[in-house]
Amino acid sequence: MENLTLLSVKEKYPFLSEIHSPEDLKKFKPEQLQKIADECRAYLIDVVAENGGHFGSSLGVVEMTVALHYVYKTPYDQIIWDVGHQAYIHKMLTGRKDRMHTNRKYDGLAGFPKISESPHDAFGTGHASTSISAAAGLAAARDLSGSNEKIIAIIGDGSMTGGMAFEAMNHLGDTKSDVLVVLNDNQMAIAPSTGGLKNYLVNISLNKTYNKVRKFIWDSLSLLNNDLGETAKHAVHKLEDGIKAALTPGAFFEALGFRYFGPIDGHDTEKLVKAFKEMQELPHPKLLHVITTKGKGFKPAEDNQSKWHASSGGFDTTTGKSLKKSGKIPPPKYQDIFGKALTELASKDHRIVGITAAMPSGTSLDIFQNTHPKRFYDVGIAEQHAVTFAAGMAAKGFRPFCAIYSTFLQRAYDQLIHDVALQKLPVVFAIDRAGLVGEDGPTHHGSFDLSYLQPVPNMIVMAPKNEQELRDMIYTASLYNDGPVAIRYPRGICTGTTLNPDFNAVEIGKGEIIRDGSSIAILAIGTMVQRSLEVSRLLEQENIEALVANMRFLKPLDTAMVHAIAERHEKIVVIEENSVIGGLGSAVNDHLRKEGLSNKVLTLGLPDKFVTHGSMKDLYRLLELDAENLSRQISSFYNGTAPGKNESSQSIIRTERFA
Amino acid sequence: MENLTLLSVKEKYPFLSEIHSPEDLKKFKPEQLQKIADECRAYLIDVVAENGGHFGSSLGVVEMTVALHYVYKTPYDQIIWDVGHQAYIHKMLTGRKDRMHTNRKYDGLAGFPKISESPHDAFGTGHASTSISAAAGLAAARDLSGSNEKIIAIIGDGSMTGGMAFEAMNHLGDTKSDVLVVLNDNQMAIAPSTGGLKNYLVNISLNKTYNKVRKFIWDSLSLLNNDLGETAKHAVHKLEDGIKAALTPGAFFEALGFRYFGPIDGHDTEKLVKAFKEMQELPHPKLLHVITTKGKGFKPAEDNQSKWHASSGGFDTTTGKSLKKSGKIPPPKYQDIFGKALTELASKDHRIVGITAAMPSGTSLDIFQNTHPKRFYDVGIAEQHAVTFAAGMAAKGFRPFCAIYSTFLQRAYDQLIHDVALQKLPVVFAIDRAGLVGEDGPTHHGSFDLSYLQPVPNMIVMAPKNEQELRDMIYTASLYNDGPVAIRYPRGICTGTTLNPDFNAVEIGKGEIIRDGSSIAILAIGTMVQRSLEVSRLLEQENIEALVANMRFLKPLDTAMVHAIAERHEKIVVIEENSVIGGLGSAVNDHLRKEGLSNKVLTLGLPDKFVTHGSMKDLYRLLELDAENLSRQISSFYNGTAPGKNESSQSIIRTERFA
Repeated sequence: MENLTLLSVKEKYPFLSEIHSPEDLKKFKPEQLQKIADECRAYLIDVVAENGGHFGSSLGVVEMTVALHYVYKTPYDQIIWDVGHQAYIHKMLTGRKDRMHTNRKYDGLAGFPKISESPHDAFGTGHASTSISAAAGLAAARDLSGSNEKIIAIIGDGSMTGGMAFEAMNHLGDTKSDVLVVLNDNQMAIAPSTGGLKNYLVNISLNKTYNKVRKFIWDSLSLLNNDLGETAKHAVHKLEDGIKAALTPGAFFEALGFRYFGPIDGHDTEKLVKAFKEMQELPHPKLLHVITTKGKGFKPAEDNQSKWHASSGGFDTTTGKSLKKSGKIPPPKYQDIFGKALTELASKDHRIVGITAAMPSGTSLDIFQNTHPKRFYDVGIAEQHAVTFAAGMAAKGFRPFCAIYSTFLQRAYDQLIHDVALQKLPVVFAIDRAGLVGEDGPTHHGSFDLSYLQPVPNMIVMAPKNEQELRDMIYTASLYNDGPVAIRYPRGICTGTTLNPDFNAVEIGKGEIIRDGSSIAILAIGTMVQRSLEVSRLLEQENIEALVANMRFLKPLDTAMVHAIAERHEKIVVIEENSVIGGLGSAVNDHLRKEGLSNKVLTLGLPDKFVTHGSMKDLYRLLELDAENLSRQISSFYNGTAPGKNESSQSIIRTERFA
Repeated sequence: MENLTLLSVKEKYPFLSEIHSPEDLKKFKPEQLQKIADECRAYLIDVVAENGGHFGSSLGVVEMTVALHYVYKTPYDQIIWDVGHQAYIHKMLTGRKDRMHTNRKYDGLAGFPKISESPHDAFGTGHASTSISAAAGLAAARDLSGSNEKIIAIIGDGSMTGGMAFEAMNHLGDTKSDVLVVLNDNQMAIAPSTGGLKNYLVNISLNKTYNKVRKFIWDSLSLLNNDLGETAKHAVHKLEDGIKAALTPGAFFEALGFRYFGPIDGHDTEKLVKAFKEMQELPHPKLLHVITTKGKGFKPAEDNQSKWHASSGGFDTTTGKSLKKSGKIPPPKYQDIFGKALTELASKDHRIVGITAAMPSGTSLDIFQNTHPKRFYDVGIAEQHAVTFAAGMAAKGFRPFCAIYSTFLQRAYDQLIHDVALQKLPVVFAIDRAGLVGEDGPTHHGSFDLSYLQPVPNMIVMAPKNEQELRDMIYTASLYNDGPVAIRYPRGICTGTTLNPDFNAVEIGKGEIIRDGSSIAILAIGTMVQRSLEVSRLLEQENIEALVANMRFLKPLDTAMVHAIAERHEKIVVIEENSVIGGLGSAVNDHLRKEGLSNKVLTLGLPDKFVTHGSMKDLYRLLELDAENLSRQISSFYNGTAPGKNESSQSIIRTERFA
């Protein structure tokens, strides 16, 4: 958008260029709103085509967002977007249109709503199913304060499968607070929605239950009298109305104490405005069921909704065809290595099953699904259930691989401890997106998994240095019978190693020294092993010869190797893409202290702060985890100018860059 | 029970004494089952009156358990008891009757179902809302294996408010696996149930919806023809049946893809047997709604269901009156100190609100509720929602105190990180039952909170040494505006300190030296501060003068104090009632390493194992955390005979005692 002149923006977006706040929107007439929605959609397509970003879900809520801001008065009224990647139109209409091209970039707009970014963002989101809980909290605060702002949560049918959405509705059914839940029903999460509730919502849309009962009633009544007079006909109509009221299609929500309205067409601005105005008058919890189409208005996205959930940009705004020059084929993604390896192993090992919480494509478990459809389970956005479901299968001899992103596994921490580890059940946690994830930012970085897994008894925790080791670790995990195993691996493309078609088990608890060196020792795990080799080459230029060890296991730690290294090297550097608290650095420190060894240790990893969004390159540099900064810090440590601080003074100066 | 002779057992329990397995039960006739149920109930009352234990919920499921084991064939068929404290009758009927007097004692039966205890325990439980997920997993495994055993989950209406129960039902609605969910509806969790769903279930029981609609239909039909002939009357009856079917009272469950049956009387063995036999014939997910009375058959427990949820024993088996001699009044419980302090503070600070997840009495937040009912929220068994709800309130300026047990807070780990800490919202976590809890065992020990909280950015984590400090910490937390605060405190009675009626803020991040000593330094936190003083007196007898520091804060650590102590004392002992991994010991080790200090450190705390059930005294001795064992270990460390291992060889020999 940066290359459009102000004039051409005005020509292309005559309405939108007049809208700098929700107040501006309210100056238009209801019948003009569709035109504004059309402009919002075109602008969004232009922005994402150039810059990338989440896409399909925002296209689906264009009309809804315009209507919401036309009726409600944010920031006085408060709107919470569940997950939040559908909030791009909301950002455009609340004064951030001209910064949309900075979306998800370092120092730019966040890809999700964020309290600190705008007063119109009532609550930060990122993970699914939180919006109704947050809305219930805001509403309870309002009720205690005696003010009368409206609180609205917009939640997709996918997010509605998360248990906490149910918990929040159940609670609101008790408090009876004035909250509007807008159910944005597009029958999709990132993948098509799943579960009993989805079928129920489809039935509502098709009005099956009511139609069936109405037919039965008519059939029965016809037995009474085939030739009813006018009075009787009137009575029958009244009867029908009464039954219709009793047979409200939203009985599920009514059961929880909500009033149910809908379903209505989510792409009709005037109907939406009318509905929201009616909702404003009702003082109790209510749910408005809105039917939308993910990707609406951009044909390629309507046709392939999963693919266009997000885009990295660089496509034709009409055809969706990529405008990027196709260069050489990049290495595969880690997730694909996982999906393919598991598929291969499962062909021989019939105990293997694959479980995902609504992320078949994000985890590449769809590869497994294609070959082994009967052993594949998509449980919905329901990490808690996913893990205990896996425990149940493991208790009967299966070998479940639960593929869950690091940050989402936080949702199932109790189940991992209480249902899996305590019972020593052999569930394998394939922890994708461990470490930094880049543009999705602080809600999605996998910063804590090594720390929160380490204290859990009976757990094996490992991380591969490259794609070959990931394959071997998946194989190793499939052979391990004595308890749960976690394998953490990063987002994005692999190192480019040539793969061995065979699988070789890794010895549990054994690391390896991959470079010898007499000056200093670097103990690294996961992504930081390859990085440490780069660092060792930079250090070599300063005549510092670094030993590099690939630890492979956080737990059990290879204490023999650590001990042997500690005896040879006074100074040890630990590098990990995890919080510096409670991960590999702490494990090494605890072990050395236990052994009474007094080596100097420098731990480098993610700081004790939430890390902002931006490209991986930007973030590594910010955190001084790029090869240059790492080697500089290690060199200082080696030369005795830094006593082994976790953060250099430079990092501390930059605190404002953290989320 | 030990003092009854074999003969008198036979006289008192003529049927029960013949039943050593579910097979024995099947020899009786259906009409004899009520007599057996009566004996089970009497036996249960006898056992609990003598030994204590969970009580009310088992009394409520006596008939249900007898009927289940009469119809189903465990261990081939698999029964999962949600939470599991209602499984005493199940244990009695599956070969454990004669060991019931060892229930919850060290080396005795566990208070919850446990896979390793009996093949009849299909899945271990302890935390709420897991049973349907586990059942879904067992059923998926069965379906893949091609066998045909039945899988039954019994879940209370309280546990049904936990989100993962909903997640599991939604998934089963999709897989359509043969699972029977028995909804044990007594309108109670430990406290009375809460939420929209509870009201819905009550309405079903009273048949309100159906009655209302039927009346309407009759009124309407009467308009049609006041004088219907026989054919017409028949047609009207058929119409009524059809409408009844359409208006099934379980529309909520039907929406998720379950077939709903009930409600039926849960204290009628013959009806239950008939219903379970019918359920056996249905191959899909179905829910049987059974109405029970918590405490059934023991009048005091029926009259005061919360009080009799569990008992410590020693009561008259008819009147319920305590047979214990009343000695001097013990010190108050920590939870009461919390409840009272918060109530006091809230009278002046109107921002304070109290939130519990179905534990008003367990957390003593009921004290707060009595004085400040409008600022009290019981959200149901829904820790996830509780935390994000609190975040919503904090975002609007309130100061929510979320009182949640340590082990249950694991359920809300993601919400604590993503919704609270990331947004720096001032939510206070009052973490009760931190550390060992005794008889409830491994599912309920609060072993990990220091470890899982430490890596979370923006958190303050503290633990009081006694009840006075707890009061002051609650006050301190109420004043802190910059982010979340966690205060962890133990189950049980306080130290007996005389309380200061005033509140005094504790300086954030400041510990205190409470005993000076030149030989060795002990850094302790929480419960272990008082214990360390005892230890220091034992050490004194060996001429070892121990400095004892009350750390107060895990985060931020009092690094200045640690540094000053480290400069004076070569040997440092850290003692904490938390896993030795990732807690205070790790924090101290990381800090010393960062500062380049080479002190010897011995960390004593909970081992990297799940700890079994038993009295606190038994468990402290097992873990060598009693004063004698601590002082012995510290003395060895001081004298250089132990290099600072976390576990002595004796502990390792005893591994079989761990869960």
